[in-house]
Amino acid sequence: MRVEIWSDIACPWCYIGKARFEAGLAAFAHRDAVEVVHRSFELDADAPAATDIPILDMLATKYGVTREQAEAMEAKVAEAAAGEGLGYRSDRIHGNTFDLHRLLHLAKEHGVQDALLQAFYRANFAEARPLGDAAVLSEIATGAGLPADAVARVLADPDAYADAVRADEREAAQLGAGGVPFFVIDRRYGISGGQPADVFRQALERAHAESVVQILPTGDAEVCGDDGCAVPGK
Amino acid sequence: MRVEIWSDIACPWCYIGKARFEAGLAAFAHRDAVEVVHRSFELDADAPAATDIPILDMLATKYGVTREQAEAMEAKVAEAAAGEGLGYRSDRIHGNTFDLHRLLHLAKEHGVQDALLQAFYRANFAEARPLGDAAVLSEIATGAGLPADAVARVLADPDAYADAVRADEREAAQLGAGGVPFFVIDRRYGISGGQPADVFRQALERAHAESVVQILPTGDAEVCGDDGCAVPGK
Repeated sequence: MRVEIWSDIACPWCYIGKARFEAGLAAFAHRDAVEVVHRSFELDADAPAATDIPILDMLATKYGVTREQAEAMEAKVAEAAAGEGLGYRSDRIHGNTFDLHRLLHLAKEHGVQDALLQAFYRANFAEARPLGDAAVLSEIATGAGLPADAVARVLADPDAYADAVRADEREAAQLGAGGVPFFVIDRRYGISGGQPADVFRQALERAHAESVVQILPTGDAEVCGDDGCAVPGK
Repeated sequence: MRVEIWSDIACPWCYIGKARFEAGLAAFAHRDAVEVVHRSFELDADAPAATDIPILDMLATKYGVTREQAEAMEAKVAEAAAGEGLGYRSDRIHGNTFDLHRLLHLAKEHGVQDALLQAFYRANFAEARPLGDAAVLSEIATGAGLPADAVARVLADPDAYADAVRADEREAAQLGAGGVPFFVIDRRYGISGGQPADVFRQALERAHAESVVQILPTGDAEVCGDDGCAVPGK
């Protein structure tokens, strides 16, 4: 089975939802047969990458609320994060996440995508590090197991993995994702939002129970099996 | 979309079927959205790894035919291979492919799985190289882009990726694969055997046309989108 998760590093419910999904997955009997792939989604692609805009100012502007009201909203999200044992700081800054997604595609090829995503979430939400700073990104990416030279090449070339990020985003739209996190099991079932762990467990169980591959009718199969290989005209 | 292909390096129809699948994929409009994953399947897991048994002797014994009849069978397969522009030698040797599959799992993590599988097929069928020889495997694996130290570690440790190989094989049985090659599109449609390219193209088109993700009904989604993030109790 395969679960694809569209998310953004700037998205608190993606951060919290990842922990909830993992708790649901841990309770799923066939968890060892589940492969998880992270897909790119940018919540604010138009924001500059390197900014010093405090998240509370961004929220106050976006929602047209006072800074105190923005703080109260953040406190509720922080409470949900704490419920999953996750740190959450409201003194983080706001910026676009395009380079982070490009690095996550590099990390996929190196088999460390999940480790890097987790490190980005922690750096953003628990540590409020400036993720628009290439040196910070590079330190986090190498810490997650990526070779420093490969990271430097990706950061130096804005086209590297850019198409892969955009392809993920187009696919999210095609699949009907209205926001993130968005979970897709075997391209069959979609789950929207940072649901409770048990919702994920149940969805995994349902997808597993209903997963039947339909063998398409074709002409004679040229196939090898226990009895050897079919030979044409025999 | 994702296509999983169960195959064995010792399987002529897997070698030929891979080329036919790739021709079908090349003719599919949405080919750029297709990810291909190779899965392990051993046709003769009980054979020793390093042997000098000529394939013609193995075939004659297996089918209870003369060496001339075995040559005639091989000639028909060679003709099918030539039809795809593939070299095919009947002076290759027979052995188990467990170490090759373990290396293909390592290659998956390094993003060079397809390159390594293609190199193994070529070495076996077009070049009749002795794939039970660790030095030969190592040369092919590094040539496909794997780090020499990682290859040496896998070859030195028979447990490395052994579970991954066996998990693939269990899954093939669960999905109803009676032999290889066995192609599975999005865990929805199965295709058995080295079918003509057009069969693969049509199956890809059918799977694409019918791919609809059903969004499961859940409670309130804690989700971030264009309008910002949902906040509990708001």
